[in-house]
Amino acid sequence: LTKIEQPSAQASTSEPNRNPKYDPKKTHITDLPMTRKNWYKHVNWLNCFLILGIPLLGLVTAWWTPLKWQTAVWAVAYYFATGLGITAGYHRLWAHTSYTATLPLKIFLAAVGGGAVEGSIRWWARDHRAHHRYTDTEKDPYSVRKGLLYSHLGWMIMKQNPKRIGRTDISDLNDDPVVVWQHRNYLKVVFFMGLVFPMIVAGLGWGDWFGGFIYAGILRIFFVQQATFCVNSLAHWLGDQPFDDRNSPRDHVITALVTLGEGYHNFHHEFPSDYRNAIEWHQYDPTKWSIWAWKQLGLAYDLKQFRANEIEKGRVQQQQKKLDQKRAKLDWGVPLEQLPVMEWDDYVEQAKNGRGLIAVAGVVHDVTDFIKDHPGGKAMIKSGIGKDATAIFNGGVYLHSNAAHNLLSTMRVGVIRGGCEVEIWKKAQMEGKDQMIVKD
Amino acid sequence: LTKIEQPSAQASTSEPNRNPKYDPKKTHITDLPMTRKNWYKHVNWLNCFLILGIPLLGLVTAWWTPLKWQTAVWAVAYYFATGLGITAGYHRLWAHTSYTATLPLKIFLAAVGGGAVEGSIRWWARDHRAHHRYTDTEKDPYSVRKGLLYSHLGWMIMKQNPKRIGRTDISDLNDDPVVVWQHRNYLKVVFFMGLVFPMIVAGLGWGDWFGGFIYAGILRIFFVQQATFCVNSLAHWLGDQPFDDRNSPRDHVITALVTLGEGYHNFHHEFPSDYRNAIEWHQYDPTKWSIWAWKQLGLAYDLKQFRANEIEKGRVQQQQKKLDQKRAKLDWGVPLEQLPVMEWDDYVEQAKNGRGLIAVAGVVHDVTDFIKDHPGGKAMIKSGIGKDATAIFNGGVYLHSNAAHNLLSTMRVGVIRGGCEVEIWKKAQMEGKDQMIVKD
Ligand code: HEM
Ligand code: HEM
Ligand SMILES: [Fe+2]
Ligand SMILES: [Fe+2]
Ligand SMILES: [Fe+2]
Ligand SMILES: [Fe+2]
Repeated sequence: LTKIEQPSAQASTSEPNRNPKYDPKKTHITDLPMTRKNWYKHVNWLNCFLILGIPLLGLVTAWWTPLKWQTAVWAVAYYFATGLGITAGYHRLWAHTSYTATLPLKIFLAAVGGGAVEGSIRWWARDHRAHHRYTDTEKDPYSVRKGLLYSHLGWMIMKQNPKRIGRTDISDLNDDPVVVWQHRNYLKVVFFMGLVFPMIVAGLGWGDWFGGFIYAGILRIFFVQQATFCVNSLAHWLGDQPFDDRNSPRDHVITALVTLGEGYHNFHHEFPSDYRNAIEWHQYDPTKWSIWAWKQLGLAYDLKQFRANEIEKGRVQQQQKKLDQKRAKLDWGVPLEQLPVMEWDDYVEQAKNGRGLIAVAGVVHDVTDFIKDHPGGKAMIKSGIGKDATAIFNGGVYLHSNAAHNLLSTMRVGVIRGGCEVEIWKKAQMEGKDQMIVKD
Repeated sequence: LTKIEQPSAQASTSEPNRNPKYDPKKTHITDLPMTRKNWYKHVNWLNCFLILGIPLLGLVTAWWTPLKWQTAVWAVAYYFATGLGITAGYHRLWAHTSYTATLPLKIFLAAVGGGAVEGSIRWWARDHRAHHRYTDTEKDPYSVRKGLLYSHLGWMIMKQNPKRIGRTDISDLNDDPVVVWQHRNYLKVVFFMGLVFPMIVAGLGWGDWFGGFIYAGILRIFFVQQATFCVNSLAHWLGDQPFDDRNSPRDHVITALVTLGEGYHNFHHEFPSDYRNAIEWHQYDPTKWSIWAWKQLGLAYDLKQFRANEIEKGRVQQQQKKLDQKRAKLDWGVPLEQLPVMEWDDYVEQAKNGRGLIAVAGVVHDVTDFIKDHPGGKAMIKSGIGKDATAIFNGGVYLHSNAAHNLLSTMRVGVIRGGCEVEIWKKAQMEGKDQMIVKD
């Protein structure tokens, strides 16, 4: 615990609350492959008991514990309060400094955040910054590339190699007395806010001490944990990627509903210091609404927001990328540079001999098979055969649609030398001088 | 009526059923402006009576005519049959030859299409082809540019200048005996299929002669007319333009519901000879379903369809156009060629004197106001000031997102001569030889 007295900008990889006995010089268990003999050494049994064992015991006990309606309401309310401690406190305030909080609000968030039992602010924000900085890489503490279950709770249930987690700057957190105090007194905070406080409220309020302990304490912790874990799993797995599809973060309303509004995660990874996760008014983001309400009450200020211009630019680029992918899959006709060059007279000759050739803008098209299907009738299309139909096709007779231009380009068979009938060449040829003109 | 004996490829502008008394040499009423004195001469009173007067009389009479349920069912069924006569017959078969029909099907469609009382096939298809060829121009017989009401029925209620309607090739229709027969015997067809036949069915079927006349005759005609008129009005006014937004046609499900599936009109104008209007299975296009069913029964064949590749190309281009419009509205930073050129040493000097300048990829950015907002923290961003931060910014320390690159470009203030610190220039300067190197 002495490390914190002189905080270093780069958080140490041997944080006390992670594993005090860690010695960087010894071979760590995660350096060894998992085998049939050593697998149990890879498991973090303490975390297993805390995250899964206790809730299971709670569930069994709940079987014999009657649920009073007041306790049910209180458990749900406290679920939201402790959830907000994580989303509005740990995440948006401390990990991303997306707004500034007054001391009373900070103390409230540090307290209810502690009640969610997900580690100290300092530990949580350090890992979370590494998650943003090294998303989807080896250094991402909860990389979804290792599987959905791993990103949900595998990373806590299995031992992790402390050397592997990316380093991040947490100097601002080390300067925050609330963060430092909560970190130093973390076990007391967890015990009081996670179990004692919810029990006291139910006990003094309506005499349901044990129900308060089981429902608003144990089981509520389980639900808050599972819900917020979804930000690391579901939010990197389910939904759309309107801003960037090179990494795993995704936007989905289901994730938002489960995580108090942290479901617009593609946006969030792109604009991490925006106090919002949902930018549209109709999207579900109670965390944003709370921060906004605190601002009205004078408890929060300096709410950071990226300009709409920046957000729209990201969206436009991603749409462009998707459109380019679609475009690449379609047939746009033989590229002009791959077409054979044809003499004007050859073109006219071949058209006379029955090939349905039409020249438009210097390119020869074989429309033989299309004549019977031409929406403007057979007579119309036949009128262009063997001619320079550029003007006819482009408004002289009918201003063809985009669709017609697209279709035409799939019928390309050649380009005309010079792009059209060149009088000077013909004259030269007639006078027998065509040898003098260099043919490309 | 003699004109039809020797059909000409270009339909005459003085079609007999339009106005037999028309003399192209005299001044037409529509050549004169409408005034308070002559307005009634502009109105086509006969059409007024046929389209609005008769249904009104029918409505009044219906007040005293009990509606039997069998007659109601029959009126609705006959509404669909005569509607299909227009959409599957007049429109998709004859105007657009989007499929080939056997003789029995042709006779059926010519008969029920006549029962919708919207003119002969020949007259209707001629105008409709002009509508496609000259969409939204002066030569479009029902141009929506003249107002929604005009395109709905104004063009029939007001006199039109026959010289104005664009010419189209209808040689194929003149070769079709069913079309020619229906055109010659049009009044008989209308009278029988529009009024007599629906009356006979109700009369012989369940003894409701007069109800059959009013409901399945008069009022059914009114509804079928108003519904199909919507293809000229609503379909050019309401909805999206996924394929081309230079003209008025639009796609909307409401129009489709009203018009037996003719509501995907932006698609239809782009791909007029496709037998479908709706290309997705879940869109409402009973006309397409009917044609498809007739094919299964051997009554229709050669159903024309544009390749999915062509359809997708149109969609991609339209999306690209919309995206380009969006992009043009956004701020992408000062273009590089408009930035002042800076010497490397000036850049370093100014950064030392307190300006928050960061050079990335040869461009100098002023990040002073952004330091406090930097999502990666103040220390990180400050580490790049006065340096060539190209590598740091692009993965050396952190691989910044698209959003960060976009934001960076809005902070441009100059470009560095040579793009970076050029050793050979510095050396020359130190040796007092810098005059010898030509500065651009
Ligand atoms: C060169 C002589 C041609 C003439 C005079 C001509 C004339 C016309 C006319 C009048 C129409 C309007 C028909 C309607 O929408 O009802 C039309 C439509 C169409 N034509 Fe042609 N055409 C010619 C060549 C071609 C060629 C070579 C193609 C090959 C791609 C083509 C493809 C189409 C297509 C796809 C349409 C329907 C879409 C649209 O409205 O643009 N045409 N044409
Ligand atoms: C040159 C030195 C810089 C360093 C070392 C640096 C470092 C970082 C780091 C580590 C992060 C990740 C923080 C997180 O997501 O939690 C970050 C994010 C970000 N930085 Fe920088 N930064 C630098 C300069 C800049 C500059 C000049 C800009 C100006 C546009 C900028 C804009 C951003 C933005 C918008 C983000 C959040 C979006 C993203 O993840 O890319 N940075 N930076
Ligand atoms: Fe994430
Ligand atoms: Fe985050
Ligand atoms: Fe139309
Ligand atoms: Fe049409």
